[in-house]
Amino acid sequence: MALKFISAEEAASLVKHNDNVGFSGFTHAGCPKVVPVAIAKLAEEEHAKGNSFKIGVFTGASTGDSIDGSLTRAKAIKFRTPYQTNKDMRVALNNGEFDFFDLHLSQLAQEIRYGFLGKINVAVVEACDVTESGEIVPTTGVGITPTICRLADIVIVELNKSVPTKLRGIHDMYELQDPPKRREIPIYEVQNRVGLEYVKVDPAKIYVVETNKDGEGGGFAPVDDVTARIGNNVAEFFVSELKAGRIPAHFLPIQSGVGNIANAVLASMGSNPAIPRFEVYTEVIQDAVIDMMQQGNISFASGCSLTVSNEVLHKFYEDLSFFKNKLVLRPSEISNNPGLARRLGIIALNTAIEVDIFGNVNSTHVNGTKMMNGIGGSGDFTRNSYLSIFLTPSTAKNGTISCIVPKVTHEDHNEHSVKIIVSEYGVADLRGKGPRNRAEEIIEKCAHPDYRPLLHDYLNRGVKGHIPQDLYACFAFHKALEETGSMINADFSKL
Amino acid sequence: MALKFISAEEAASLVKHNDNVGFSGFTHAGCPKVVPVAIAKLAEEEHAKGNSFKIGVFTGASTGDSIDGSLTRAKAIKFRTPYQTNKDMRVALNNGEFDFFDLHLSQLAQEIRYGFLGKINVAVVEACDVTESGEIVPTTGVGITPTICRLADIVIVELNKSVPTKLRGIHDMYELQDPPKRREIPIYEVQNRVGLEYVKVDPAKIYVVETNKDGEGGGFAPVDDVTARIGNNVAEFFVSELKAGRIPAHFLPIQSGVGNIANAVLASMGSNPAIPRFEVYTEVIQDAVIDMMQQGNISFASGCSLTVSNEVLHKFYEDLSFFKNKLVLRPSEISNNPGLARRLGIIALNTAIEVDIFGNVNSTHVNGTKMMNGIGGSGDFTRNSYLSIFLTPSTAKNGTISCIVPKVTHEDHNEHSVKIIVSEYGVADLRGKGPRNRAEEIIEKCAHPDYRPLLHDYLNRGVKGHIPQDLYACFAFHKALEETGSMINADFSKL
Repeated sequence: MALKFISAEEAASLVKHNDNVGFSGFTHAGCPKVVPVAIAKLAEEEHAKGNSFKIGVFTGASTGDSIDGSLTRAKAIKFRTPYQTNKDMRVALNNGEFDFFDLHLSQLAQEIRYGFLGKINVAVVEACDVTESGEIVPTTGVGITPTICRLADIVIVELNKSVPTKLRGIHDMYELQDPPKRREIPIYEVQNRVGLEYVKVDPAKIYVVETNKDGEGGGFAPVDDVTARIGNNVAEFFVSELKAGRIPAHFLPIQSGVGNIANAVLASMGSNPAIPRFEVYTEVIQDAVIDMMQQGNISFASGCSLTVSNEVLHKFYEDLSFFKNKLVLRPSEISNNPGLARRLGIIALNTAIEVDIFGNVNSTHVNGTKMMNGIGGSGDFTRNSYLSIFLTPSTAKNGTISCIVPKVTHEDHNEHSVKIIVSEYGVADLRGKGPRNRAEEIIEKCAHPDYRPLLHDYLNRGVKGHIPQDLYACFAFHKALEETGSMINADFSKL
Repeated sequence: MALKFISAEEAASLVKHNDNVGFSGFTHAGCPKVVPVAIAKLAEEEHAKGNSFKIGVFTGASTGDSIDGSLTRAKAIKFRTPYQTNKDMRVALNNGEFDFFDLHLSQLAQEIRYGFLGKINVAVVEACDVTESGEIVPTTGVGITPTICRLADIVIVELNKSVPTKLRGIHDMYELQDPPKRREIPIYEVQNRVGLEYVKVDPAKIYVVETNKDGEGGGFAPVDDVTARIGNNVAEFFVSELKAGRIPAHFLPIQSGVGNIANAVLASMGSNPAIPRFEVYTEVIQDAVIDMMQQGNISFASGCSLTVSNEVLHKFYEDLSFFKNKLVLRPSEISNNPGLARRLGIIALNTAIEVDIFGNVNSTHVNGTKMMNGIGGSGDFTRNSYLSIFLTPSTAKNGTISCIVPKVTHEDHNEHSVKIIVSEYGVADLRGKGPRNRAEEIIEKCAHPDYRPLLHDYLNRGVKGHIPQDLYACFAFHKALEETGSMINADFSKL
C-alpha cells in the first residue's frame, strides 16, 4: 500500500476542534515541528472566523516551541499534560487559560489506555523512516509514541529528512499490556532490549508530511563554582558510600535530571578516579552523557530521549556505529517505570526549587503558586530508587532566597521518600533520622551559613509534636521575600 | 541438631544495649508477645542499676502492645521504624523521646539489606512451627521476617502453641535479591505463589521460647451512617466505571486500608449486585474480607497479615481447609511492592486525616505536628495503583473540623498521585482536571455543605497562578479550630 504524502496544512486540516492530539517526543527531542505549527495557524484562522478551535495536547514530557509555544500563542489548547518548559505556555497555564495536569511521566501512556483522559483522535509523530507496511522509526525522543500511534484514528508522520535513517536500531519500542493481563517488563540490566526497532501501525491510517528541520536544542550554561561544588559533594558522597559497602562495588545505574547541576554532577563523577565506570538509566540523555561515553566513563545509557545540543547531536550522528550498541531510547512508561527503577536499583539525582528542613521537596511551584515546569519523572525515580538524592544550591538570587526553608510552599516529594540532600555546602543524610534530627542535619550541612541561625530559630520555637512546625510562622521566609526583597529579613513573630 | 529451648528471660538476656532488634509480624498479627515484654523488663532492671539500655525496633508495621507498648513504657527504644499505632508509643515519639522514621512499608526490608539503617543483631519472631533443620513457619503476620531472620546473628523463635501448626502452607516466603542482581517477582495473578512455606535459617542461631498466647486483636466499631454512605458512594462509583469500561469487566484486585471505613466499603461492594466477585491484594486482611470470602464475594485474598478479631481468627482456624487455597500471607516487600501494585493494576482505597481542595492528602500528622500512626503502605499502593482513591468523612468532631481544608498541614500524598476522593456526600473525580477545577470538584462533591462557602471564599481570594493558594491564609481553618473550637469560624483576613 502506497503511503499518502500530504502537506503540513493538509495534515492540520485532519485535526478537528475538541480533538485530543498526541505528539511524539520527550523534551524538544523527537517532537514534530511543522504540523503543530500548521495546527496553530489553522486555529488562528478558525478563531478569526469566530469558530472555536481548541485541542487537548498529550506528549511524553515537554516539547519544542513548535508544539507548546505555537499552540499556546494561538490559544489552541483546551488541556495539557504531563509536563512543559515553554515560556509562553507557562504564562498561559499560570493565568488559568487551560487545564494542566502535572502527572508522573511514567503514568501517562497507561492513563490514556485506561480511558481516564478521553480518546486520542490524532497522533503526530516525528520519524526518520516510515515504510509502506506501517513501520515508523522515531527520531531522538520517544515519549508516548507507541500508545498514541496505536490508539489514534489518524497518524500523521513528520518524516524528517535531516535525521539519518540509520538511526533505526537505537530504539526499543515496547508497550505494556494493561491489567489484569500485564506481565513483567523483561529488563534486568540497563542494556536489555525487549521490543521492536519501530512502531507498527495500520498503514491505512498513516499520512506523511516530509520535513527537513534541525533539532530545537540549546546548549547549557558552563559549570559555575556553586554547581561544581555540588557535583564534587555528590561524587565524594558516592565514594564514601562505596567504601562503606552501601553502594555495590560495580556501582548502580544513575538517573539524573535535566540541566546544569545534573551535568556538573556527571562531570564530577567522571573525573573522580574512585568512582568506577557506570551506567545510566534515565529519562533524558544530555550532552555530558554523550561526552562521557566517548571518554569511557559511562558504559551504557538507556533513556527516553537524546536531549542534546545540535552540536552534540551531529557528533552523535557521525559516530552512530560507536553509540548503537551503547545507547537505547525507550518509551516513557519503560524509561520511567517504577518497577524497573526499583529492580535495577537506580540512584536518583534530581534538582529542587526549595527543600524544607524536615526533608520535603518542592520541584514545581515557585512560591507555591506559579508552575515552573512540572514534576516530570522525579517522582517515578525518587520514590522507587535505591537511593534518592536532591540537589540544590543553598541560595538563589544573590542570597535573597534561601533554597532551604522552614516549609516548602508546594510539596512534590516528601519526607518518606527523600534520603539525601546536597548543596554546595555539604551532604545531609536523612536515613534513619526523625524530623528534629533531619532538620539539624539539613541546616548544618546544606543551608547557607547566613540562614542557619534563622532556621534554628524556627526549629526551636518550642512547638510540640513529632514535627515541630509552626503553621503560622512557616512561610515567614516567603513573606519577608515578598515584603522586603530578601528572606534574610524573616520575622517569625510577625505572622 | 537439637533446638535450644530457653525461657523468655534467657532470650531477653541475649539482647544487648544498642542492639537493633527485628520483630516478626505486621500489625498485632504475627508479633512475638513474651520476649519483648521480657526485654522491656530487662531494660527497666538495667535502668534501675543506672545502666543504659535502649534498642532499635524494626517491624513490619505496627505491633501489639507487647512490643511497642512495653518497650516504650520501659524507655527501652532508641529508634523505631516504619509505623506504629500504640498509644504510649505515640505519646513518646510526639515528645521526641526517640527517633522515628515514617517509611513506606515496602521499603524497610531492602533498606535494612542495603545497610542504610545499621546491622540487625537479633530477630524475634513468632512461629507456629520450627524444625531442627531451621524451618520457621510464621503465624498470622509476616512483615520483614525473612530479612531479619537471615541477617540477625541470633533468631529467637516464640513458638506459640495456641496457633495450629496446620497453618503451614498459608505463607509464601520470598525475599528479593538486591540490585544489580534483582529479578522480577514472578507474581502475575493475585493467587500466584513464588516462595517457600517457611523461612529457613541456620539452626545454630535459633533459640526457642514456648508460649501459648492468644492474638491481641480487638474488634471494629459497627458501621455507622456516615461510613455506610461513603461505602455506598464507592460502590456506585465502581459500577459507573465498570459501565464506562474504565474498570475491566472482571474487576481488578482491591487494596483496602485498615479500619471501619475500609470495612464499610468492602461491605457495600459485597452487597452491590453490579460488582462482580473480586480479589484482594493488600497489606492487611481484615474481618470483612474473611466474612466475604465465606459468602463468596471475594475469591482470593493476598496480604501481609491476618489482622482480625480473635473471634474471626478462631473461625478461620476451624475452617482452615476452606481458606488454604484462597488466602496467602507474604512479606511486606511483596505485599506492598510498587512494581506488583502497578503490574496487577490494584485499586487502592485508603483513608485520610484531611484532604485539601487541590487534591493533597494528610495521612499521618494531626495539625501537621502530632504523629497519628504513619504512612504505612498507603504510599506504596496509591502511587502505583491503577486507580487511587481516598476516603474521608466530610467532617469530624461533630462538625467542628472540616476534613476538606484549604491546605493540608502535612502532605503524604500529593496532587500528582491522588485521583479520586470520596466522602459521604459524593465522589470527586480529579482525573484530567487542573488545580482550580479540582478544587471546585472537591468542594462541591465532598465538602460538608456548611463548609462549602468558606472553601469557595478561599479559592476565590484572587491569588494568581496555577495553584491559587494563599500562603498566609491557608491555615485559617486550623487557627479557628485552635482559637474558637471550630473551623467554621475561619477568618482568612485575620492572618
